[in-house]
Amino acid sequence: MKYSYISHLYCPKCGNTYETSEQYQLCTCGSPLLVDYDLEGISRNLSPDVLALREPSLWRYHELLPVENAANVVSLGEGMTPLTLFPRVGENMAIEKLYMKDEGLVPTGSFKARGATVGVSKAREVGVKELAMPTNGNAGAAWGLYAARAGMKATIVMPYDAPEITRNEVALSGANLYLVNGLISDAGKIVAKAVGDYNLYDASTLKEPYRIEGKKTMGLEIAEQFNWQLPDVILYPTGGGVGLIGIYKALKELKALGWVEGKLPRLVAVQSTGCAPIVKAWEEGRRESDFWKDSETLAFGINVPKALGDFLVLDAISDTEGCAVAVDDESMLQEQEKIAQMEGNFICPEGAATITAARKLRENGWIGADETVVVLNTGAGIKYPDTVQVKPEMLKKEDTIVKKVEESES
Amino acid sequence: MKYSYISHLYCPKCGNTYETSEQYQLCTCGSPLLVDYDLEGISRNLSPDVLALREPSLWRYHELLPVENAANVVSLGEGMTPLTLFPRVGENMAIEKLYMKDEGLVPTGSFKARGATVGVSKAREVGVKELAMPTNGNAGAAWGLYAARAGMKATIVMPYDAPEITRNEVALSGANLYLVNGLISDAGKIVAKAVGDYNLYDASTLKEPYRIEGKKTMGLEIAEQFNWQLPDVILYPTGGGVGLIGIYKALKELKALGWVEGKLPRLVAVQSTGCAPIVKAWEEGRRESDFWKDSETLAFGINVPKALGDFLVLDAISDTEGCAVAVDDESMLQEQEKIAQMEGNFICPEGAATITAARKLRENGWIGADETVVVLNTGAGIKYPDTVQVKPEMLKKEDTIVKKVEESES
Repeated sequence: MKYSYISHLYCPKCGNTYETSEQYQLCTCGSPLLVDYDLEGISRNLSPDVLALREPSLWRYHELLPVENAANVVSLGEGMTPLTLFPRVGENMAIEKLYMKDEGLVPTGSFKARGATVGVSKAREVGVKELAMPTNGNAGAAWGLYAARAGMKATIVMPYDAPEITRNEVALSGANLYLVNGLISDAGKIVAKAVGDYNLYDASTLKEPYRIEGKKTMGLEIAEQFNWQLPDVILYPTGGGVGLIGIYKALKELKALGWVEGKLPRLVAVQSTGCAPIVKAWEEGRRESDFWKDSETLAFGINVPKALGDFLVLDAISDTEGCAVAVDDESMLQEQEKIAQMEGNFICPEGAATITAARKLRENGWIGADETVVVLNTGAGIKYPDTVQVKPEMLKKEDTIVKKVEESES
Repeated sequence: MKYSYISHLYCPKCGNTYETSEQYQLCTCGSPLLVDYDLEGISRNLSPDVLALREPSLWRYHELLPVENAANVVSLGEGMTPLTLFPRVGENMAIEKLYMKDEGLVPTGSFKARGATVGVSKAREVGVKELAMPTNGNAGAAWGLYAARAGMKATIVMPYDAPEITRNEVALSGANLYLVNGLISDAGKIVAKAVGDYNLYDASTLKEPYRIEGKKTMGLEIAEQFNWQLPDVILYPTGGGVGLIGIYKALKELKALGWVEGKLPRLVAVQSTGCAPIVKAWEEGRRESDFWKDSETLAFGINVPKALGDFLVLDAISDTEGCAVAVDDESMLQEQEKIAQMEGNFICPEGAATITAARKLRENGWIGADETVVVLNTGAGIKYPDTVQVKPEMLKKEDTIVKKVEESES
């Protein structure tokens, strides 16, 4: 039995195909490339029941992943993150079956580790020695550290305003770290130049075909965790959009395998009102988005003014009868606090955005009260310390706590 | 079949016993209380093979945990953290089979979540409405957030110098947060007073009997992840010591169940040279430690000048033919960087301390080259941003990356 049933790369725009033992970036037509598998082969040789006995990491799905030789896998045990019922917040917004998948519980504290483990592993398999990428922080942290584990060199360029902790992660990994006084789009231009100048592997979002395969495991896991019964709605915070594209790809593959049946979940792309190019395109009924000028949001991971895969995101939400929703920063922060106080989870602002969006869509009736809804928290709240304002009471050693009567009696 | 096979509480010092439906803190003799189980009942009704089919959280071991009604479980999907081979660092220190168990991958980013999920769940079961505790940061974050999930009130007192991110976690949880200009021992005194004044449940380390049960799951998982073959050595960063006591308790229970055989792993308590009361007691052949004056270490989690369970730690390392080792802060930081660059993992200083200790013990021959060694990384490095000094190159939008020739050719 084969470790991977990868068959070839194909272009979702022009239909061109490529084989998978060489290094490829974009299609000659400029579109991202996607991976195809011999799904019939998997169907004949693998039953979903077998998966339950495998270790709880995303590599349990190795037949559906692109790495052909297990020895190339660069893993830190990432994946099989919890899918947790949020009963109190769910009741609060009248969605009884509200689940959060917690991507804070992976190495580097964000879902970017999924893309990095698969992307770096496959890069190793096709002989990459040095990669480069722009990042809003978390992807750079993940790729920097996984590249280090693979013994690969990495050059990472991130905006000066990206979360400071992600600088530390990249620096500690030994990668070459550059900060740019601009946005991820500016970092991208610098990386593109360096890729040309020094013949590096371009690991920018969707410029290599494999990180999406890592991210699709979120979709595989959701299906397996619901025992191969799909939820009704999945909400995803959308910057580059690879997570959403990946989940959609996973669900289609599972359907082709016959492991799931019926209607696919409606996929919802959630953005910030300060950077909502895909929401705008969606509302205008267009298939591609325009560059969003002067974008700004504290949810740094979704501050992406123009995503290379925007058309894939728009296809995915259109095909599944989903939608795109923008929420403002203030609402995200309120939701973040509510989640901590009602559910005990310190999620990131991007994750909080999906909860706000679910609330809005329930209020306007787009989500029904008895539907099963999954929101993705794409990272740990501890990576964003500045979202919380703290004014604790200061005590001296000899002080005692004086509680207000209301407090101790309530 | 019962959810839990808990039988009673007992005092490891005076032998007194207590039943488990009431709230208890310390034994009347002043010692911490431990939980005992009907291991014969478990042995008759549960086979370890069944566990493999359960969800990947520590609650898979519910028969060996104290919560009797599953409805009381307060969980965020914690546990079954990766046990990852560190091949390059292992080779570097001539320990081929060096594994790290990564406790950064749990809610709140530290192993404290294990104690909190079990401690808060059992507190709910015995009717606790409000708890209080001192903390060096991570335990407070975990208990604050799990208490919030349980709908329970919490009062948390931490040193002003504790990691800032843990303040944010506690504050966001809605707990009452107080900072004290002192050490955890000073915070402990303030909590003890408040517990008396307001009749609160004292959730201080080992003053309630159940958090240790959560922490013992690290030992259960290590055994299961090695397919019920035990490693030779386990190194644990030791502050309050509950993790080490818990692992020891787990291993003894597994042995009594007949799920593991042979010699128990040698347990190693790792401390900082700036706060090494247990190492000192160990070296002096004593059964209890003295208060360590003016303790100081950047590994904040192990800055505990006097642990209530010191005698249990010393017993555990003595019974298993283990030892206690102190390492300095400088070595920890070097090891932290090495782990990131060679293994791609950003671990916390406490975790790095265990690697340094393993290196020392290998150098002096205490650990053999062919032994299987497990170190515990008790938290995510991202919770300690200040351990990394970063001086990245700053670019303007129009700049290009100029790589040194050595760099691009090496």
